[in-house]
Amino acid sequence: MKTISSRQNPLIKDLHLLANSAQERRKQGKTVLDGVHLLEAALAENVVLELICVSEHGYQQAEILALVTALESTVNCLLLPDAVFSYISPTDTPAGILAVMTMPRAMMVTTPTSSCVVLDGVQDTGNLGTIFRTAAAAGIEDILLTEGCAQAWSPRVLRAAMGAHFRLRIQEKVNLQHALADYQGQVLATGVKEAKTIYEQDLSLPIAWLFGSEGAGISPTTAALAQQIVMIPMAGGTESLNVAAAAAVCLFEERRQKMVNQG
Amino acid sequence: MKTISSRQNPLIKDLHLLANSAQERRKQGKTVLDGVHLLEAALAENVVLELICVSEHGYQQAEILALVTALESTVNCLLLPDAVFSYISPTDTPAGILAVMTMPRAMMVTTPTSSCVVLDGVQDTGNLGTIFRTAAAAGIEDILLTEGCAQAWSPRVLRAAMGAHFRLRIQEKVNLQHALADYQGQVLATGVKEAKTIYEQDLSLPIAWLFGSEGAGISPTTAALAQQIVMIPMAGGTESLNVAAAAAVCLFEERRQKMVNQG
Repeated sequence: MKTISSRQNPLIKDLHLLANSAQERRKQGKTVLDGVHLLEAALAENVVLELICVSEHGYQQAEILALVTALESTVNCLLLPDAVFSYISPTDTPAGILAVMTMPRAMMVTTPTSSCVVLDGVQDTGNLGTIFRTAAAAGIEDILLTEGCAQAWSPRVLRAAMGAHFRLRIQEKVNLQHALADYQGQVLATGVKEAKTIYEQDLSLPIAWLFGSEGAGISPTTAALAQQIVMIPMAGGTESLNVAAAAAVCLFEERRQKMVNQG
Repeated sequence: MKTISSRQNPLIKDLHLLANSAQERRKQGKTVLDGVHLLEAALAENVVLELICVSEHGYQQAEILALVTALESTVNCLLLPDAVFSYISPTDTPAGILAVMTMPRAMMVTTPTSSCVVLDGVQDTGNLGTIFRTAAAAGIEDILLTEGCAQAWSPRVLRAAMGAHFRLRIQEKVNLQHALADYQGQVLATGVKEAKTIYEQDLSLPIAWLFGSEGAGISPTTAALAQQIVMIPMAGGTESLNVAAAAAVCLFEERRQKMVNQG
């Protein structure tokens, strides 16, 4: 396996940028997958890996060694001193293995045909990734993100989503007016005031769920797309939930109702 | 209002430690509340603030100015240069106001009388705070934490919980065998295998929910306390949810069933 021992190496500099700069990822059209679990999730969905980097420390772990052994005939693999690996790792606690992949191309905006999650201005990468993970678990296939959201394929979002990216269709920088114009389901937003609860609302047909950022909520333009406001009934004194928690409650209530309907 | 302009001032050094060291918070028995929202949540529940610090920048914000004006006759208030305030702030994005409060004393371990959340080894401060926030929203009053959890009253957990701390009874370093020995409800853990789903399970009586850390799950000792395993039914390909998302789904399903039962 090839080794690079200097941080000054152009490829190493390049990988460092890829791991740490959203702009650079956009420019190169690539991102970084960090850790065994994500690599395995990507491979399970036939994602093509362009390059694998392993730290010397990581190479001594049985799980990583097995993965590299299985892949090194088909994927370029690099062994790096721990310090160099840390330098290109997107996290403070380097996992010992990472891979470079091409980010899926921006597709033509397509209108989802079943339920979907629409995120407006969600900047927190942990929340974003957690929502992806929950959505995939709830059987959702489509995620639409407005311009103001964090980069969907950033290493932090990938890490929080634990492989959900590879089971979702993720559309970024979506013009929602356009994308939802012909949507054949109900467009719902959550609110707190005198609305039907999600338990009273019939969720058996396709739903586009609108969720906004923690502080600002959904923008007026996005809110105008909601056909109805529904409410998560909260105990006295509580004003709101974390956006990823709210999404979990809504998406699994939808799942429950659809399961009941299917008998 | 009194001003301190040097980082070398012993009080400033002390506040820096309080904001950044769990050990120091334990030693002093105090913690730091960061930002207007948390201070207001604490005041709404009659929490006694020992000291308020405002940055020069913060002091120019109407919301902060109003809060300080209302409180300065009863609470010690300090005006700090922005650089000094940043130094004692628990976050990278200082909110411009913070307060010191005494952490609630460790109580005698009491057995909850209604539903409660039991967290085993949950280290991630964001998850911990989000679970507190969700639990309070779901009407839960008791949280039990094992020794291996992050410090419940740390500034990061406080921030993520958005004031939920003040509406919960939080017991840390709990011996669960002891605390749950006489529990008059059902002790449930979530799992993936051939269990009843949370939708099939009757959740109308009090429940102690056991949740573990992301990686390791609940410890064998804690798992042994579960009277039953229930499952969140997930779509194919997904193995698990983020622990805070799983808690949101379970706690609100319980809330839904209890609301239905009450008519």
